[in-house]
Amino acid sequence: MIKKFLIKAKALKPKLTTTEISVDADKTPLGDGDHTVLDFGDHFVGKVKIKFSFVGSPPDAPAFVKLKFCEHKSELDEDTTNYNGWISKSWIQEEYVHIDDIPSELKLERRYAFRYIRIDVINISSKYRLVAEKATVVSQTSAKNEVKPYGEDETAKKIDKVALRTLKNCMQYEFEDGPKRDRRLWLGDLRLQALANYETYNNYDLVKRCLYLFAGVSEKNGNIPACVFTRPRVIADDTFMFDYSLLFIPTLLDYFTATGDKATALELLPTALRQIEIAKENFDGDVVRDSDKLGWCFIDWSLELNKQCSAQAVYIFCEKSAIKLCSLLGVKTDELEEDVKRKTEAAISAFYDKSLNLFVSGKERQLSYASNIWMCLADVTGKENSINILARLENTDAIRPVTPYLYHHYIQALIDAGAVDKAKKTMYDYWDGMVDAGADTFWELYDPNNADASPYGSRAVNNYCHAWSCTPSYFIRKYFTGGKND
Amino acid sequence: MIKKFLIKAKALKPKLTTTEISVDADKTPLGDGDHTVLDFGDHFVGKVKIKFSFVGSPPDAPAFVKLKFCEHKSELDEDTTNYNGWISKSWIQEEYVHIDDIPSELKLERRYAFRYIRIDVINISSKYRLVAEKATVVSQTSAKNEVKPYGEDETAKKIDKVALRTLKNCMQYEFEDGPKRDRRLWLGDLRLQALANYETYNNYDLVKRCLYLFAGVSEKNGNIPACVFTRPRVIADDTFMFDYSLLFIPTLLDYFTATGDKATALELLPTALRQIEIAKENFDGDVVRDSDKLGWCFIDWSLELNKQCSAQAVYIFCEKSAIKLCSLLGVKTDELEEDVKRKTEAAISAFYDKSLNLFVSGKERQLSYASNIWMCLADVTGKENSINILARLENTDAIRPVTPYLYHHYIQALIDAGAVDKAKKTMYDYWDGMVDAGADTFWELYDPNNADASPYGSRAVNNYCHAWSCTPSYFIRKYFTGGKND
Repeated sequence: MIKKFLIKAKALKPKLTTTEISVDADKTPLGDGDHTVLDFGDHFVGKVKIKFSFVGSPPDAPAFVKLKFCEHKSELDEDTTNYNGWISKSWIQEEYVHIDDIPSELKLERRYAFRYIRIDVINISSKYRLVAEKATVVSQTSAKNEVKPYGEDETAKKIDKVALRTLKNCMQYEFEDGPKRDRRLWLGDLRLQALANYETYNNYDLVKRCLYLFAGVSEKNGNIPACVFTRPRVIADDTFMFDYSLLFIPTLLDYFTATGDKATALELLPTALRQIEIAKENFDGDVVRDSDKLGWCFIDWSLELNKQCSAQAVYIFCEKSAIKLCSLLGVKTDELEEDVKRKTEAAISAFYDKSLNLFVSGKERQLSYASNIWMCLADVTGKENSINILARLENTDAIRPVTPYLYHHYIQALIDAGAVDKAKKTMYDYWDGMVDAGADTFWELYDPNNADASPYGSRAVNNYCHAWSCTPSYFIRKYFTGGKND
Repeated sequence: MIKKFLIKAKALKPKLTTTEISVDADKTPLGDGDHTVLDFGDHFVGKVKIKFSFVGSPPDAPAFVKLKFCEHKSELDEDTTNYNGWISKSWIQEEYVHIDDIPSELKLERRYAFRYIRIDVINISSKYRLVAEKATVVSQTSAKNEVKPYGEDETAKKIDKVALRTLKNCMQYEFEDGPKRDRRLWLGDLRLQALANYETYNNYDLVKRCLYLFAGVSEKNGNIPACVFTRPRVIADDTFMFDYSLLFIPTLLDYFTATGDKATALELLPTALRQIEIAKENFDGDVVRDSDKLGWCFIDWSLELNKQCSAQAVYIFCEKSAIKLCSLLGVKTDELEEDVKRKTEAAISAFYDKSLNLFVSGKERQLSYASNIWMCLADVTGKENSINILARLENTDAIRPVTPYLYHHYIQALIDAGAVDKAKKTMYDYWDGMVDAGADTFWELYDPNNADASPYGSRAVNNYCHAWSCTPSYFIRKYFTGGKND
């Protein structure tokens, strides 16, 4: 814990903007086993109040109700009783509440992320029926301004609207990964949110706060954890990811590029550079250890993915960011440059399959989009070859991306390689697929070929509003401008 | 609704006395499916706070816990999932709560009546375990003073201690029937609580408030309901009971006798007398209608009980109270006296079985303690005969009392008939049986021969702290004084 960084982070804690939105219920009298649904018409994050009345005799016993908060319509009828996945069932937004006084307004203490509320009456006296009158959400965000959906065509505008809402609803006291789950700051998500934020809400202080939070909770050796808890007090998670720690560097570079805030960049530079030193401990010579010895390196939620090659590429990508940042700040880069040269050469000799003209990963020489995307982002074999690599991949059985997170990197790699049209088509196909499937905000997971996809054992715990899916707003404004930015 | 009465009732709303009591938990780390129990050492009524901490990794998901508040130890392991009785399951004091921030203090909004709290962890992340550190109840009552347990012997003192706590814990903004269930003002309970209160806590204003509440919510025709709701606003229940409405009269008489508050007695006298007029509508000539045409007349929770004879007796008992009250207030009693004479004669000719020398009830000429207890209380055949009736009953298969409510009236009848020793023995046997069975407060139901007795379909909804069971404190101080009061 570095106290001076945490003090700065605390000073930057935003005031949230709140807005009250109410909807009328259908006012059906509800007896034992009955239910009703409230639809807020869009995705909201906030605390909820529900007004109840009754019909019949005076309520002579409390009403015991179940409240289910759903981000997506499909959750309304989803049976969650048998959920047995590997992350806690406690994430499912279901509450069981006794209502003692009727009529009254039930004020729930917790914050929810939802569009729909399903109210089930579990137990009620036979002498009366419960009536849901009206529900109100005190919607909250640290996005200060509204941003108008933008795009060179209707599809882009449609996608942008949903992406903007995704980002806005993840902007709370920190950039959260998902306002339903985990409701906290992860480095991989932060980097993408910050990129979208620079093009839209421009809440630079929120990025700055998050950078100081990560730096502030770094380990004694300087290692930055993958995630920070801020409630009930600021502490580091004991989860470290090879890639997430390193991604602090480009996140700081992007912040400096967007803001020109040299003081912050200089103050956090040593923490950033330290991640490279720590990452080096995972190398044998200039080649990073194989997946099984590397610890957790996220890259994507694909469970079969070998991550050795991607890890090497992330290292090079981040070291190049470090070189750029140091140059901008007037800090010497000789050692970094020498190291990145060695790591790049090692990457090619260890992972580049000359017969395939593609990168492969691990002992099994596994072919995946992930390895090649990251090697292209790290610009290991040059822009010309990148475009060929990305095109060549399509005719293989390479493991495909499963999250919008890796899709983001795929699109960025296509753009960096100059395949902007292909990038745009990929983005349209993927993100518009979610819009067509009823997204008000973009999802944590989306597999166009498998609606039930979840790395957790059930989509009941998936997020339907997830930070790393918000980058269409970044791509649309930065690259897909119909020539406006040229 | 009579507004001027409700205004008086409101002005008399008591301030509650609160006391914080904390107990340490055993601090066992709790994972999925684990539980722990907190024992507060006595019965309390109030709101609860529980401090939680954790062991293991930082809590990366909320803890979903079930909290069960138990008045009696036997409830801790009672399976309530299949409860299917006729009163709402919502009365069972079980909560399901998500704890988002750990460590933190969980503050529950509802009020509970309990000695034990069982905490079950339903869902938790595998990365940490929950630790219950400490629980606090903000105990509340409108009893202003502590009363020292009293009695001519150790058994009496032991019973009195529990009875005092029963009354104290039922004394809230009103005299409640039970702080677990129904948590409200019933006339039959009020009358007995008031009697115990005059001998112990002397909170006369609380009785006065309750009298005004009943008078204030009386029907247009003047009929007093069996029960008043005060939350979220004062309204009458739509439940009327033949006996409960009439019992407003002796309750007012007792209040006047205890306080000498003539203004209140005079103001409420018309409402009291009106109950006799309304009750008369249930008479054919001078005999009350049989059970099936009478509407609800409570008397006792025995479901087989024919209540015709008891109803006639309650009418006479209450009319005699009216005569006494009118006399004390200087109001004419001629008509009442004439009526009570006729009703008494009719009672004897309709219900007194000369071969049995006992009262019987209904077409089936059912023999019960209830009929005879109330006829003795109403002094229909004179004190001499009462003592014989009550003695004679014991060698019959008369339906016995099942609630402490009717036990109270049995003991009062024995005392009125002069059988004080028998009354005392009956009280000791019955109430000490509850103490031996682990009562910290006296129960709504107690059948020495059937621990599972419940009129509701399951004892899961029974009260283990119930107003009508508190009268040992009245009997002990008023009658069982070891000669002290002689």
